[in-house]
Amino acid sequence: MSEQPAPAPVSVPAPAASPLPPGVAAALKRDSAGLVAAVVQQFDTNEVLMLGWMDDEALHRTMTTGRVTFYSRSRQEYWRKGDTSGHVQWVKSVAMDCDGDALLVRVDQVGAACHTGTRTCFDGRALEVRTGPAS
Amino acid sequence: MSEQPAPAPVSVPAPAASPLPPGVAAALKRDSAGLVAAVVQQFDTNEVLMLGWMDDEALHRTMTTGRVTFYSRSRQEYWRKGDTSGHVQWVKSVAMDCDGDALLVRVDQVGAACHTGTRTCFDGRALEVRTGPAS
Repeated sequence: MSEQPAPAPVSVPAPAASPLPPGVAAALKRDSAGLVAAVVQQFDTNEVLMLGWMDDEALHRTMTTGRVTFYSRSRQEYWRKGDTSGHVQWVKSVAMDCDGDALLVRVDQVGAACHTGTRTCFDGRALEVRTGPAS
Repeated sequence: MSEQPAPAPVSVPAPAASPLPPGVAAALKRDSAGLVAAVVQQFDTNEVLMLGWMDDEALHRTMTTGRVTFYSRSRQEYWRKGDTSGHVQWVKSVAMDCDGDALLVRVDQVGAACHTGTRTCFDGRALEVRTGPAS
């Protein structure tokens, strides 16, 4: 059970004025840009829809408004899913993983999750792999 | 449909001698540490088990051996899931997302995915949130 390291490596301290509850802010392990990965999953089918990034403020907005907000690494701005596309993500639950560097956001996705129009950002993008033994 | 930026922001070039197929190496958008996020999902139940990190070599090993290998950010070494715990992840499929900065690895998980002993790294770690409207 000592297989996976407890502390994430490149974590940075909580922002001076994190809007998050203190326990959550303390547990988050941010990367060098202050972000954690957020896996977004459809709550009833368990489909993995997409992966986005959140800083403290984006997570705060996601936890308190019922809508998912990300931080865009390329545009360096907040981005509330669905504001331009209509493809809103309604928040059902949010969980933090064991070492605080990932979030699982369960949502009810309106329409396509992917900006390309596919239901998920992984649809039709399989790589050629050797699979493990049949179970 | 222009909601989400196409290129990831902090991408670094492919390693000089990436072991990946050229098309895959070219499409990957690595962070400043050369890593992409890998979401691991149980293939038959769709549970999200954990999130790990892969560089080109870890993805290559995952695509070619039938077992999932990560790159540990804290220990800065390769880490083949199950080697010390026995909790092997057998690869069923791997997909890359639309902008190349995330992977979805569908597996058959032996035992607990989390080093804490829970089935997934998110079990029992829900945050208090305001949910969106009932669907």
